Amino acid sequence: MSKIYWSPGLDQLEPYTPGEQPKSETLIKLNTNENPYPASPEALRLLEQHDFADALRRYPDPESCELRRAIADKHNLSAEQVFVGNGSDEVLALSFYSFFRRSEPLLFPDITYSFYPVYCQLFNIKSRTVPLHGDFSIQLEDYAAPAAGVIIPNPNAPTGRYLPLEQIEQLLRSQPERVVVIDEAYIDFGGESAATLIDRYPNLLVIHTLSKSYALAGLRLGFAMGQKHLIEGLLRAKNSFNSYPIDAIAQRVATAAIRDTAWHSDNCGKVIATRERCERALTDLGFEVIPSQANFLLAKPPEPGAEALYLALRERNILVRYFNKPRISEYLRISIGTDEEMEQLIRNCKEILASQS
Amino acid sequence: MSKIYWSPGLDQLEPYTPGEQPKSETLIKLNTNENPYPASPEALRLLEQHDFADALRRYPDPESCELRRAIADKHNLSAEQVFVGNGSDEVLALSFYSFFRRSEPLLFPDITYSFYPVYCQLFNIKSRTVPLHGDFSIQLEDYAAPAAGVIIPNPNAPTGRYLPLEQIEQLLRSQPERVVVIDEAYIDFGGESAATLIDRYPNLLVIHTLSKSYALAGLRLGFAMGQKHLIEGLLRAKNSFNSYPIDAIAQRVATAAIRDTAWHSDNCGKVIATRERCERALTDLGFEVIPSQANFLLAKPPEPGAEALYLALRERNILVRYFNKPRISEYLRISIGTDEEMEQLIRNCKEILASQS
Repeated sequence: MSKIYWSPGLDQLEPYTPGEQPKSETLIKLNTNENPYPASPEALRLLEQHDFADALRRYPDPESCELRRAIADKHNLSAEQVFVGNGSDEVLALSFYSFFRRSEPLLFPDITYSFYPVYCQLFNIKSRTVPLHGDFSIQLEDYAAPAAGVIIPNPNAPTGRYLPLEQIEQLLRSQPERVVVIDEAYIDFGGESAATLIDRYPNLLVIHTLSKSYALAGLRLGFAMGQKHLIEGLLRAKNSFNSYPIDAIAQRVATAAIRDTAWHSDNCGKVIATRERCERALTDLGFEVIPSQANFLLAKPPEPGAEALYLALRERNILVRYFNKPRISEYLRISIGTDEEMEQLIRNCKEILASQS
Repeated sequence: MSKIYWSPGLDQLEPYTPGEQPKSETLIKLNTNENPYPASPEALRLLEQHDFADALRRYPDPESCELRRAIADKHNLSAEQVFVGNGSDEVLALSFYSFFRRSEPLLFPDITYSFYPVYCQLFNIKSRTVPLHGDFSIQLEDYAAPAAGVIIPNPNAPTGRYLPLEQIEQLLRSQPERVVVIDEAYIDFGGESAATLIDRYPNLLVIHTLSKSYALAGLRLGFAMGQKHLIEGLLRAKNSFNSYPIDAIAQRVATAAIRDTAWHSDNCGKVIATRERCERALTDLGFEVIPSQANFLLAKPPEPGAEALYLALRERNILVRYFNKPRISEYLRISIGTDEEMEQLIRNCKEILASQS
């Protein structure tokens, strides 16, 4: 019964598996790169103070004009260079549809955000993965081949490794006739955004999310920045899929959050400081830590190894991310929480490692 | 420049054009079938009273468990027979992808929701439109042909005409191997939902929205109901597109709205009573009104005709929907507002018609 009604091929899709969202409140949750601090108080206050009855009764602004203006102001762009979506996952999906359905393969790193191959399946896009070096760095020369386009996260996930803008420019120049998407979900934790390159590169699309540095994963808001002709392509796909993807509350809350630049830079600074302390502490415990400009660390624990440590931490109500995948199965990805959470993590790691030796 | 970076064919898409969302506050807005009353106070109160900081910081429940349970309870189903999406437009898009990509054409009426042909273009689905009768009724025999599936709104939009359940059953029996989607966006204003047929028909998918009878168009929440194997197909497509389409606030507000059944039936009763009064008044003015079980009326005005009346009403700050399309260009679609708004509409129609004679 199950599949006779499905479109042919639907049963071949292998959906993305998000990090676990357990319901326990007592857990220290360091597995999905959420921000440990509450979002901008300006944004949160809106919810209490604003009367949303009328805004909810009516359809929201299908073009999210105010929100796009706030994003444009922050990044020195015009509103027509900004596209917003229901989380950066939706923005990514629409970007794959709009730019990468071609006869050549799309190129992306072999170790990267695992939703990329899923979008390729969804839209029947060919792809070719390009191996990272042994130290997980990206070899840019490998991307100068005939392609449908290129997508890389910067910093990359789950490695945390960052490419400086000169290298992003090298990538953009090597694919002048194809779109290069720089997925900057983690850029605010120490990197420099490629958004400053938009006026010079007609093939550059930069994607951001409010889920990490804005502490609004629960709001589902992502955006793309690029020259007007790329944004128009995205709008054409979006308006053929869902006219009103951003609800009236999310438009207002996100606008307030984007405009609260003081909260944002303060928050990023706190996360970065905690990451640096945590990196030193893990190194002291014998972990091999990959240099990270993100709000997580990819680290290879000493004996008993990644999987055993993941399970032992879980027993102690600390959740980190373990990928049972080639090349990274000896590593754990640890999101940066509060200082107190990271101290508990370190203390528990120390105890577990000591009990093994 | 504009299109060299687009996927081939993207420039051929003709996106859906939603009804106008003007920013003027003084306008009487009867053009997009919104509810004239504020949503359930239980749902609205949540926004003021709940502390959303933690819910927004974290990713939302990707499975929207509580919301799906509330919907299942209301419709006497199990939660695994319910799928939720970011507005019923997203649910429709994913349904087209999941069930209708086949070698035969999808069948739907020639006069119906104008997003259907757009989804067909988006996913490269063949389609064949089936003409309505002269009185805008649906001829069911015409749907018993080899097809990828069938989709009809019940009540149909923009006609408002309703099919009783026996006729829906006839349709389901005529396509036993294909999915039949009944798009019930307007069912709560006088019709009987086909959700009661789900246990007997493995090919039935029923789609609802919170935008009309729940007065939550600004929240973007729609859902599908069907046997588990159809919901599993939708989940597979959804989890390959966007893991977390429903934000944390929308999940809670929608759950409260669905559970407030007293508000809902009271609200629908008020809209129905106003529609019936308005239908009589328009008939008295010489309009030909199509019988409607929706929260709008499709009506053919006397001289000077639909377009002239639409423009004259607009000058007087009353917005209704005029479709410049074959077969319905002599009609206006008028959403049901409050009694006072409809009295103003009638008074202004009377003045405009009088000034023409």
